[in-house]
Amino acid sequence: MNVALKVAYMGTNYHGFQMQPNCITVEEELTKAISKATMQEVKIFYSGRTDTGVHAQGQIVNFHTNTSVKIENMARLINFYLPSDISVLDAWEIDDDFHARFSAKGKHYKYLVYNSFQRNPMYFDRAMHYTYKVDVEIMQKAVNKIIGEHDFKAFMGRYAVVKDTIRRIDRIDINKDEDIIEFDFYGKSFLKNMVRIIVGTTLEIGRGRLPEDTLLEAMNAKERIKAGPTAPGCGLYLMEIFY
Amino acid sequence: MNVALKVAYMGTNYHGFQMQPNCITVEEELTKAISKATMQEVKIFYSGRTDTGVHAQGQIVNFHTNTSVKIENMARLINFYLPSDISVLDAWEIDDDFHARFSAKGKHYKYLVYNSFQRNPMYFDRAMHYTYKVDVEIMQKAVNKIIGEHDFKAFMGRYAVVKDTIRRIDRIDINKDEDIIEFDFYGKSFLKNMVRIIVGTTLEIGRGRLPEDTLLEAMNAKERIKAGPTAPGCGLYLMEIFY
Repeated sequence: MNVALKVAYMGTNYHGFQMQPNCITVEEELTKAISKATMQEVKIFYSGRTDTGVHAQGQIVNFHTNTSVKIENMARLINFYLPSDISVLDAWEIDDDFHARFSAKGKHYKYLVYNSFQRNPMYFDRAMHYTYKVDVEIMQKAVNKIIGEHDFKAFMGRYAVVKDTIRRIDRIDINKDEDIIEFDFYGKSFLKNMVRIIVGTTLEIGRGRLPEDTLLEAMNAKERIKAGPTAPGCGLYLMEIFY
Repeated sequence: MNVALKVAYMGTNYHGFQMQPNCITVEEELTKAISKATMQEVKIFYSGRTDTGVHAQGQIVNFHTNTSVKIENMARLINFYLPSDISVLDAWEIDDDFHARFSAKGKHYKYLVYNSFQRNPMYFDRAMHYTYKVDVEIMQKAVNKIIGEHDFKAFMGRYAVVKDTIRRIDRIDINKDEDIIEFDFYGKSFLKNMVRIIVGTTLEIGRGRLPEDTLLEAMNAKERIKAGPTAPGCGLYLMEIFY
């Protein structure tokens, strides 16, 4: 059977999702736990990698198995073998041709900012700490200018290796509630660091240090250097994959 | 001058607030940091102790000092000497006769429950994990029966040493939003473990394992054994002190 899992993790202690030598990754922990639970070697497919320190509430993975473990016991059994900062929230059987990445139609990322002068331990490693006052209305106007299908090369991390940098952003919602600013990104898929560069730039626009058209102009120029700083990984959450 | 501080901390790594030998406590870390920042030995007063693992977003402390450090630099300077899981959110000068505990008129505690079958790393050490389905309406009705000034001896931890067990609860609000249940307690002051015993008992009522009048009957009987289990410290947050 083909098994889909909804996985949550705090990325703080991991070198990102994707397996790599000499580093602890979420993929490695998950693969080991699933192999122990199903008593079979498994290869997992996932909706997309997340970087070092980035969290997830709705990462989707799938794997093929002919284990005798019943699907209704799968999540609990895998969780038994996982460390406390990774958890399978749900497990279900799915069509054989389902692939966590290739079947995905869209993604929802959330970026959290703790916006106050002093740091707050509640948000340590869980949100970006930003001390400057920002104008949320101006930030919303600024991001609205880059909604749609565009070449987002300007918002790609330097070490990314993709050639096709055209992506589609469907919506970016910015909300402030007391000291917390939430950025919600919806789109087909995102380039490496794309959300974090847009957030970092938008905050500088919001505090008045960069002009409102910075995002638009950087996008049109297709130059990373025209955009603002990359916001840290600790504020980013992969929330949901749409199929 | 008399300096008041609003302090936030994650209680996970501390043996509660109050200083004690051979244990790391929030009071000790805070006293050391303030002494370094003001370059004077200080004795701090606080609104109330919190137990091992209990968090705070609005603990209030005060201390007397004749330091030359300006009040507007105080919070940042103390934070420089504090570990990342304790932070001064605000500092201000206050009347000489202000005492963080004796001047307090009321307190707001929040208790967080992650209510879902599988655990979620997002709430590890930050909320109680409760796997059973609960009826929030029944829970609200049950807690409403113990609002007011009463002898709450039934809801006091076994090793507490106070003689006067009469307390006043002004309000308990219970709200559920997706997987999160929030209990908000407002009252003059609370006995040791009182909030946690009420939460633990109310959840058992909510899942139908204890009758709706359990809280009321335990309170009237003044017997700890008539109430339900004590909810763990990790879900409890001291939110605000009213003066």
